[in-house]
Amino acid sequence: MPNRINKDTRLCISLSGRPSNIGTRFHNHLYEALGLDYVYKAFTTDDLPGAITGIRALGIRGCGVSMPFKEACIPFLDELDPSAAGLQSVNTIVNDGGRLRGYNTDYSAVRALLDSHAVPRSLPFALRGSGGMARAVLCAIRDAGFADGRVVARNERTGRRLAEEYGLPWQPDTAGIPAGSLLVNVTPLGMAGGLDADTLSFEPALVEAAAHVFDVVAMPAETPLIRAARAAGKPVITGAAVIALQALEQFVLYTGVRPSDEQVAAAAAHSRA
Amino acid sequence: MPNRINKDTRLCISLSGRPSNIGTRFHNHLYEALGLDYVYKAFTTDDLPGAITGIRALGIRGCGVSMPFKEACIPFLDELDPSAAGLQSVNTIVNDGGRLRGYNTDYSAVRALLDSHAVPRSLPFALRGSGGMARAVLCAIRDAGFADGRVVARNERTGRRLAEEYGLPWQPDTAGIPAGSLLVNVTPLGMAGGLDADTLSFEPALVEAAAHVFDVVAMPAETPLIRAARAAGKPVITGAAVIALQALEQFVLYTGVRPSDEQVAAAAAHSRA
Repeated sequence: MPNRINKDTRLCISLSGRPSNIGTRFHNHLYEALGLDYVYKAFTTDDLPGAITGIRALGIRGCGVSMPFKEACIPFLDELDPSAAGLQSVNTIVNDGGRLRGYNTDYSAVRALLDSHAVPRSLPFALRGSGGMARAVLCAIRDAGFADGRVVARNERTGRRLAEEYGLPWQPDTAGIPAGSLLVNVTPLGMAGGLDADTLSFEPALVEAAAHVFDVVAMPAETPLIRAARAAGKPVITGAAVIALQALEQFVLYTGVRPSDEQVAAAAAHSRA
Repeated sequence: MPNRINKDTRLCISLSGRPSNIGTRFHNHLYEALGLDYVYKAFTTDDLPGAITGIRALGIRGCGVSMPFKEACIPFLDELDPSAAGLQSVNTIVNDGGRLRGYNTDYSAVRALLDSHAVPRSLPFALRGSGGMARAVLCAIRDAGFADGRVVARNERTGRRLAEEYGLPWQPDTAGIPAGSLLVNVTPLGMAGGLDADTLSFEPALVEAAAHVFDVVAMPAETPLIRAARAAGKPVITGAAVIALQALEQFVLYTGVRPSDEQVAAAAAHSRA
């Protein structure tokens, strides 16, 4: 409660064009559960350099970074963690005594999930999408050791650009994706409340033939794609897992404390309530 | 509680060289009591311009300013309220959509208390002290219409300078203070825990002869000077009243909401607990 906040309480914030309550609720719930003297609040800004100057000057401990600031913040930081350096995209800033280091916990979370699900690196993969998150996921997949893949994107310009950046072919549709692939959706297809909430980003026959299915869409917790994959008995990685893990990594970077899986699950549920 | 904090919660802060918990506890207690969606936290900084840049860039609603920033902050503000303009000393910054206005609620509180206690402007006054708060109090007394006064300060350099700034005589001790005066203490004499906790800033005979007694020392709530004045049946203005009123004015500036006297008293008690 605010009455617990004192002069030594550490502040963590987020900066985004359109703040949501999810991070604020997630982090504060865990601070409370773990008895940590921290408080978290989302902000927006029309002066990104000024906001980062303020983070340093006020000793704000950490800052989550969302659109449209993930690349724009980089010139104002002191150093980049490898998770952000390859991508040149930051979603987490940690302030150690005025020294600001940028991380990308989306990237770290995807890599960690590919490891923990033991997805064989020899699988061909097809990644659908061409936005900023698609780029982070693709970078993680490539860095994890997957070599044989393709980018599927309806938008030829952004699709070609992303594919070329990683030396992969681009195609506008799902034709020719081999059986036994890792299918990765990083489009809004299947997202609750969206125009395409009921659309599968990969057709049922592709899901049937896949080796692994990974849907970065986190809402609903079980997207149509994940539901179809589970019905077909395929191992899945969910967007909910990505979100929870990236938020957990952010939390650990800020506080140095690693909550239990149960505590994270409770905070994640609270953050979406 | 932190779980109540959301993306729209407004943040107020303070900046001082050595943050205390008093403001944090006072403001948060009132936010809670009044159901206001605000949160308050004290900060320090080694980069005052950067901190003020951050206030603007993050849309921090208000900022209490203490030593050593009360004058140094002025070049970074957009405008000064009359309460701060004469003094050139700011203890409160209000951010209206990126426009920062500086106030001095110590000054306002002293003026308001001189009014509410109906202290006759024709009284001679003797003000003891020569620091920053002495200057704020003296400025308020002069602006309120008191003309016939003197500055009493052991430190000749700062005492003379303050007296000359307001066209008053300086003297090193309390000799010659006329009967029927307004006695004003703005030194640490009588402050709890200080070296001079039991020292009266004006001798008992002066208190006996005074018309009004004003002690800016706020801890203890009843200083030796106030106790002596009350025992002699003199009307008093206490430092606790100044602190509570200046904090209240700050609260009203930030929130636009004026709590009841009972709510302020409860918050003030909580802030010192």
